[in-house]
Amino acid sequence: VSAIESVAVVGLGLIGGSLARDLSARGVRVLAYDANAESVRSAMRAGAVTESLDASLDGARDVDVIVLAVPVDAAAGVLARLAALPLRARLITDVGSTKRGIVDAANALSLASRFVGSHPMAGDHRSGWSVSRMGLFRDAVVYLCAPPAASRTTLQYATEFWRDLGARPVAIDADEHDRRVAWTSHVPHVVSSALGRALSRGGLPRRELGPGGRDVTRLAGAAPELWTSIVQDNASEIEPAIRAIEEDLAALRAALARSDREGIRAWLSASRAWFDAS
Amino acid sequence: VSAIESVAVVGLGLIGGSLARDLSARGVRVLAYDANAESVRSAMRAGAVTESLDASLDGARDVDVIVLAVPVDAAAGVLARLAALPLRARLITDVGSTKRGIVDAANALSLASRFVGSHPMAGDHRSGWSVSRMGLFRDAVVYLCAPPAASRTTLQYATEFWRDLGARPVAIDADEHDRRVAWTSHVPHVVSSALGRALSRGGLPRRELGPGGRDVTRLAGAAPELWTSIVQDNASEIEPAIRAIEEDLAALRAALARSDREGIRAWLSASRAWFDAS
Repeated sequence: VSAIESVAVVGLGLIGGSLARDLSARGVRVLAYDANAESVRSAMRAGAVTESLDASLDGARDVDVIVLAVPVDAAAGVLARLAALPLRARLITDVGSTKRGIVDAANALSLASRFVGSHPMAGDHRSGWSVSRMGLFRDAVVYLCAPPAASRTTLQYATEFWRDLGARPVAIDADEHDRRVAWTSHVPHVVSSALGRALSRGGLPRRELGPGGRDVTRLAGAAPELWTSIVQDNASEIEPAIRAIEEDLAALRAALARSDREGIRAWLSASRAWFDAS
Repeated sequence: VSAIESVAVVGLGLIGGSLARDLSARGVRVLAYDANAESVRSAMRAGAVTESLDASLDGARDVDVIVLAVPVDAAAGVLARLAALPLRARLITDVGSTKRGIVDAANALSLASRFVGSHPMAGDHRSGWSVSRMGLFRDAVVYLCAPPAASRTTLQYATEFWRDLGARPVAIDADEHDRRVAWTSHVPHVVSSALGRALSRGGLPRRELGPGGRDVTRLAGAAPELWTSIVQDNASEIEPAIRAIEEDLAALRAALARSDREGIRAWLSASRAWFDAS
């Protein structure tokens, strides 16, 4: 990132850790805090973090960019703490999977003009510093949600920040974002987990699955803490989406019960048509 | 396969085509039939098939092994046609995803002592000769289901046949097989398709998904014809399994509706525990 010399990363999990690695590899000074001090020490040994921050985040006052990479239900609290500091940063952003709550929270704070929420569509079911890696954001869509009070310069700056990491930033309204990711990310997690739970009840270990079944159940291994916060935060969008899946499964079951070959084929054909169109 | 000199493969799709490739690479003479003559010609050009068979399958009388690699609702008809021929084969097998029907059908025929049903847990959402490939069965579990009338020699022979292709054969009762794959294979397909259908209704193309969402929806691209036959054939096992998934999704939805954080976390934690244990 051309004009960026220093970035504070709060939270060194998969996303924060990968960010720190990419940024430091580009010569950016990376300051970091993580509740787990061992993650910070590992990141410093790996050369991904230049300097550690303490929980006050006081050392972040002079950096160019601040990134919150903490669970979605912790981000607003960290943001409030930052708002009490005399920040020099041109951009404050987060990386959470839901955006309405954090964007609303930011909009009410003094730092609102310099805040844009981010959601990189990267990573997988794993979490933590130990699985962070360089290049995680290459070609990944990163949704950018600006609060009403954000300046256009801030949005432009956020766009360049992510583009320089190889990502594809897409500006979107926070409500629309949460509606969309309920379907494209949260419900896939839920469905994958439901399948894992069913197999667990049936005493069928994952190693008995073929390649297809392993794909479908990969997200069943996601971190429960992180995802509890996400689905709870986006419950209003996720609930009707889950209900729609239940009803659609019931429709297939009804077709099976009446041996309706055409009905079954039509049901399966619609998903194939969607798959082929993408 | 040491003592095997010739194999007839009926159906040159992903499974039959991959079998033909592996066998011919081991110096086995491969005779093949496919309703699509162009697939047979392509396979002969690729050196995977030595000789083509006509629809009577009459040319298969002298081979050592006959493999039916046709859709599950077509296999019994082909088997009956073969039973009318004076076969020299020591092993007649199929590769279908359901086993109860074909094993029952075989048990009633004169060739029963030489039949063992096979189900290789290999392949993915794609189908047809064009996606067949060498080494598809390496390390894949292959379920073997012998009808009561099958000889122990036949089961041993089938075990060696698959082991020589690098697969891991597992003998299992046909009823137990169908119950198990309902959960490990068929319901994952259904769930993946339900998600694809939901995204389709929402106007959300697959390219908007992150890596996790793409994994979960990969099976949504499976061939509707093939899978209509499979889920219809195994409907009695699949119906209650789908219903259990619906009920489990409803339970999560209820926890979301009452903002039951502990309930949501417990729901997600069970799938993670299953994932970690496998």
